[in-house]
This record gives sequence, C-alpha cells and structure tokens, in this order.
Amino acid sequence: MSPINLAIVGVGKIVRDQHLPSIAANPDFKLIATASRHGTVDGIESFTAIEDMLKAVPAIDAVSLCMPPQYRYEAAHKALSAGKHVFLEKPPGATLSEVADLEDLAKSKGVSLFASWHSRYAPAVEAAKSFLGSTKINSVHVIWKEDVRHWHPNQEWIWQAGGLGVFDPGINALSIVTHILPKAIFLTGATLEFPENRDAPIAADLHFKNADDLPIHAEFDWRQTGKQSWDIVAETDAGQMVLADGGAKLTINGELKSSEPEQEYPSLYRRFAEIVKAGTSDVDLAPLRHVADAFMLGRRKFVEAFHD
Amino acid sequence: MSPINLAIVGVGKIVRDQHLPSIAANPDFKLIATASRHGTVDGIESFTAIEDMLKAVPAIDAVSLCMPPQYRYEAAHKALSAGKHVFLEKPPGATLSEVADLEDLAKSKGVSLFASWHSRYAPAVEAAKSFLGSTKINSVHVIWKEDVRHWHPNQEWIWQAGGLGVFDPGINALSIVTHILPKAIFLTGATLEFPENRDAPIAADLHFKNADDLPIHAEFDWRQTGKQSWDIVAETDAGQMVLADGGAKLTINGELKSSEPEQEYPSLYRRFAEIVKAGTSDVDLAPLRHVADAFMLGRRKFVEAFHD
Repeated sequence: MSPINLAIVGVGKIVRDQHLPSIAANPDFKLIATASRHGTVDGIESFTAIEDMLKAVPAIDAVSLCMPPQYRYEAAHKALSAGKHVFLEKPPGATLSEVADLEDLAKSKGVSLFASWHSRYAPAVEAAKSFLGSTKINSVHVIWKEDVRHWHPNQEWIWQAGGLGVFDPGINALSIVTHILPKAIFLTGATLEFPENRDAPIAADLHFKNADDLPIHAEFDWRQTGKQSWDIVAETDAGQMVLADGGAKLTINGELKSSEPEQEYPSLYRRFAEIVKAGTSDVDLAPLRHVADAFMLGRRKFVEAFHD
Repeated sequence: MSPINLAIVGVGKIVRDQHLPSIAANPDFKLIATASRHGTVDGIESFTAIEDMLKAVPAIDAVSLCMPPQYRYEAAHKALSAGKHVFLEKPPGATLSEVADLEDLAKSKGVSLFASWHSRYAPAVEAAKSFLGSTKINSVHVIWKEDVRHWHPNQEWIWQAGGLGVFDPGINALSIVTHILPKAIFLTGATLEFPENRDAPIAADLHFKNADDLPIHAEFDWRQTGKQSWDIVAETDAGQMVLADGGAKLTINGELKSSEPEQEYPSLYRRFAEIVKAGTSDVDLAPLRHVADAFMLGRRKFVEAFHD
C-alpha cells in the first residue's frame, strides 16, 4: 500500500517537537504540504490557508490539525468536506458540540476522524490499566502541577476563553484516568481558580466518583516551580500504585514495574494509520466532557493576576 | 395493560404545578408513592428517602426525579439499579458525564431512561420546525428574558455551582432551538455575567453557528422586569418567523399561525409511557451540552451582587 499523503495545518512548537519526527519515522505517511499563517517545513510545499492548500494539492489524503482549539472546527470541516481523513491534536475542539458535528460529517463522508490523546500512549499506561483491572481500587489521587512559564511561555491563546488554561495539561491526566479506570467517572464538585486578569483558570481542584463511590481527587496547578508533578496515585487492595511522569513510569508498592522510553506521538501516528486503513474513526470525548463539566459545575474563585 | 405504578422523588413547586395534574389525567400512570425531604402528596404513601421507598413499595415500576439536578444522579442510580424506569426533570443532571453513565446503566438493566425537555412539547414547536424545514434560514435570534425574583423566589439551589443560574430557563430555549433547526449548532463565543455574590450566572450572551455559517444569537437574562420574553425569531427566505411565549405561539410575517393551549407536561408523560411500552430510552444531551460548552468557552464577567 502506498503511503498516506499527509498535510499539516498549524505549524508551531508541537509540530516541530513531535509531529514531524513521528511522521518522518513512519513509512505509512508521507508529508506533502503544510498550511500555516507563519510556520513552514523545509522542503515541503507550504500555504498560508488550508482552503488554498486543499485546492492546490488534490493528492492530500489526510490532514493533521495542530492550531489552537478555538480555530480547529473550520479547518476540520473544510478537510472532511473535501474527503480527507483528519487527525485532531488535543483537545479536539473548543466545544463538545462542534466535535459531535465533525463526527457526523466524517461518517457521512466515509473518512476517518481521530481525536488524539497523546498521554494515553505514554509507556506505562497500559501496565497501569491492567494492574487496576486486577484489584480493588480504594482511592485515586491525581497531581498535575507544572510551571506554565516554562511550558507555555507567552502562549496567549491558552489564557483566552476556550483556551482551557490549566486544563490544557490537566486534560492529559483526564485522558489517562478515563482510560485506566475500569468504570466511568463523573465530577461531584470542583473549584476553579482564575487569575483576575485572565479568562482561563490557573488551577483546579476536582472531585470525581464512579458508580461504586470510588473517590477520585485531582489537583491541577500551573504555578508549580521546582519539581514538576504529573502523577496518578491509586490506593488498592494490592497496595499503592504510582503512575508517574505523565504515564512514563509505573511503581507498585515502591517497586519499579515499567519505565520505557517515551513513544507517544509515534504511537498516535500508528493508531491514525490503523483507523484510516480500517475505515473507522476514534473519537472519545470523555476527557473534554469532564473539562466542560468542571467549568459548568465548578465554583469560580479569583486569585492574583498572572503575568508571563 | 395495567397502569405504570409511578413514584415521585422531590415534591416541590414543579411537582404540584405540573407533574401531579398531568399524572392524574393520564390513565397510563398511577401514582403510588413519594419520597421527599419535606413535601408529601395527600393520600399517597410518603417517605423521606428514596431507598426506603424502593424497599417498602416493590410494586413501583417507574420513578420521576424532580429534585435539584445536583442530587439527581444518586437517586437515578438507585432507581435504575432496582430495575425501575426513570423520568428525569430538566436538566437531566449536574454533569454530562453522570447522565452518560446513567444511560449505560439503563441499557444494562433493560429499563427506560427519559431525559425530559418540557419546552419541546410547547404547542407551536412542531409547526415552527416544519416551517423552518421548508425554507432557507438566514439568522436566528433567541431572547429569553425573565424576572428571577418572580419565577424562582428564594430558590437557593439555582444560584449554587451546578444550579446553572440563568441557564435553568435558558436551557428551555436551547431545547427548542436544537429541536427546530434542521442542522446541529455549536457555540462560537459567549459572555456569562455572574453576580459578584453568586456562583451561577444571571445573564448570558451566546453566539452559535452551524456548518452552513448560520448565525444564531441568544440572549438570556434574569433581570427582566415588566414584559417577560421567551421568543425565537428567525429571518428566512419565506419571511420572519416568531415563535413566542416559550413556544406557545407561532407568527409568520405577522400572521398568527398557531396558538393552542399549553400541554407540555401531559405530553411529557405521554412520551414517557410510550418509551416504557416500547422498551426504549430517550436521552438527548444536546441542550445540556450547549450549556456546558458555554461555561467552558464563555468569558466570565462580574456584575453587581444579586439579592432576592
């Protein structure tokens, strides 16, 4: 089978850091065009608008959309309408409703839509899921605390309404939690801290449970300096499980069970090729639905202004 | 067929005003028990807790849940687990995720779950839907402005996080709009006004569109004194359509097309009997999903304190 001719829209940091190397290493894909207001990729035909690209390069089979979520629907709608498969960076959109609409469109066009959640492909996630499925879980504590100045310097879109604020990393935790826990969870209470000069929260404290009353407490904070934390701790009948470093490292009762090199984006592109070949879509809205639930149910608290 | 033995949980204003007369007038239902912290119904066996009621009255076939949405999941889970059909007052829950969980539970138990949207059964709604389906729509304007002091005097739960504030009436408008428009809509921008002493918004300004770029503007406001407005105005190629009085009255180009007596709750109970007999569920989350989207995407603005 000849490779899938791929185009990228929105050439920024995540594309250079993750998408380009993963695509280059995957024989299922061939990058043939980009569309971006500013960014280009050396040696690849570039456009500033997706509609121009789609018109000029009919050989495109699939499109990866990597612009901020507030602008993703328009591009996805154009690509799907033109019969292209679509890979959505996370989060898949600015609203749940627009992604539901894209899902219907992909189905009616007979093309694949992929709502990607890279953290679900972190190396120790499957081992954690399998451990949790084998025992009784008594509580879960999620600690996702990082320094926004380091990870998102001067990224204005992330602070705008719809940019999700601390839920931009936090949704990675939610994508793992919803994947590794055996039962569906739902929010029972939340506090969201908004800097008084920003439209998106800088911290969130979330309480979930499932139908069995399992308590799940999640703390997201963007003000963490020093050691960064991306940990999921579960107390179980078989002892304490710590899934650390964003899903990279699994420890059970202090014993290291898994610590493999990170392969998230290469795995995402393998999955994308798989669904394109199978003629299916992969759109799980649960992580974004929990974020929307947190904004709807959460109490708002104002905290001191944030300046980059 | 013998009537469906029904219980009501959460006996308050909406139950006395709407549920009781609708149930009394429908031979498909027989009210046999209630559970409520304070309210009772004359001549009907009453309990203070749903679990006591379910244990003491095994003849119950179905339960209508009318408590505030923040407390609905627990009760719904107990009723569905006990094999009872469930009627959820609007909104169906405090989060989207819990309702998705209830949907799965109803399916696994083989019972019916009904997420009710009473405004969809307002008398002129179907005529409006049929008119809009027959022409090209150019814009839609939704004006839902009422006096919260009049309609929700001292209802504290409505102002708490999860109580939805002005979206409690606004979701009625959204339930109609999502039903009468031929294509799915999604939010593109929103402003939510929170009284500085409250956890829920008192006003919201919402912009939606659909895949065809149809502009839909909705204004929800709880500070309206004097004339109350529950109107949906559409400019179309066949002229101006006004669906007024919360769906009760349809006017096209100034000509009155439909104005029938209100039958919302009787229609809801007819629909509930229909799905119970058919062994199906009726759970459309679109209205609540738009509300969650508005909280997630919307800008928050603080306005003067609100006192009842």
